[in-house]
Amino acid sequence: MTTICGYSTDECLARVVKFHGHPAPGLLIGGFMVDMAMRNKPAGEFFDVLCETPVCLPDAVQLLTPCTYGNGWLKVVDIGRFAITVFEKYSGKGVRVHLDASKLDDYPEIKNWFFKLKRKEEQDRDKLIGEILAAGPRILGASSVLVDAKHVGKKKGGPTAICPKCGEAYPVKTGTTCRACQGEVLYK
Amino acid sequence: MTTICGYSTDECLARVVKFHGHPAPGLLIGGFMVDMAMRNKPAGEFFDVLCETPVCLPDAVQLLTPCTYGNGWLKVVDIGRFAITVFEKYSGKGVRVHLDASKLDDYPEIKNWFFKLKRKEEQDRDKLIGEILAAGPRILGASSVLVDAKHVGKKKGGPTAICPKCGEAYPVKTGTTCRACQGEVLYK
Repeated sequence: MTTICGYSTDECLARVVKFHGHPAPGLLIGGFMVDMAMRNKPAGEFFDVLCETPVCLPDAVQLLTPCTYGNGWLKVVDIGRFAITVFEKYSGKGVRVHLDASKLDDYPEIKNWFFKLKRKEEQDRDKLIGEILAAGPRILGASSVLVDAKHVGKKKGGPTAICPKCGEAYPVKTGTTCRACQGEVLYK
Repeated sequence: MTTICGYSTDECLARVVKFHGHPAPGLLIGGFMVDMAMRNKPAGEFFDVLCETPVCLPDAVQLLTPCTYGNGWLKVVDIGRFAITVFEKYSGKGVRVHLDASKLDDYPEIKNWFFKLKRKEEQDRDKLIGEILAAGPRILGASSVLVDAKHVGKKKGGPTAICPKCGEAYPVKTGTTCRACQGEVLYK
């Protein structure tokens, strides 16, 4: 039976719906990606994950590994590539898994979805999910990588002070006032 | 009985540990923040959340609302302020809740933790959690806000193409090659 990080595909889909709100195809493919990366990750107890897109894929990581956005073990860079890297927390040695677009010819509905060749309302959702389950890891590619130092390790937050302009606590390293009071507009 | 988004405090803590990996004080305070924001949010079925720090707090939002990092309903800006805003998805009208540092005098262990006045190993974890549960919403502040247009609504991804340098799919809007091939270094 096909499993994704120890879950049956039905269990995985149910968890995706519960967390992400709908059975997103990208999360199901993301599940197979996390599964492949975890099976091939370097030895070592502690690992972080680098995700190359903020869209969909981070939720597969959060659902299926201990790495979340808020605990800092999941790092997201907005490169726009559909890829994740599971890497040893301190050395940066890892395995990168991406959706290999050159392997999609046998899976037309995945290709339509991935390259947005059909509008969402024109996509055949059942066929798409069926193709993803049939394809499993066959549409993925994996390689060994060494994550660049800037994404390895935890950044220290440093001291906290009260911003003299807004009166709220902020990290001193960002300046003499908080970044909102420096002009980063959040509210009108 | 004190509840956080419908969960008992014990249930909430158990969910925090399961998702985030440990009973982070920031997530427990974050739970009270989400709870206060949800009780005071403007009418309207659909809402997004803006979180002003990537540290800890996004996980409280992901645990207690339908908004996740991967589904795009949780938006994170790194201002470094311990605050969230729950806002109506289309108008941007919302309620912002922050940890009000001026209300911490009666809660010395929270103050020690929040301003990093004690090293982690010197903190009294049980006392800290006890103070957070005793304080509940008393250490928070809330205000009505209108979220700036740049954080309201969903950004369209646009067309996807194959990067001529690395051969992987990428969003065309970022240029003639993907951002990694433009020089954003991820791997050595």
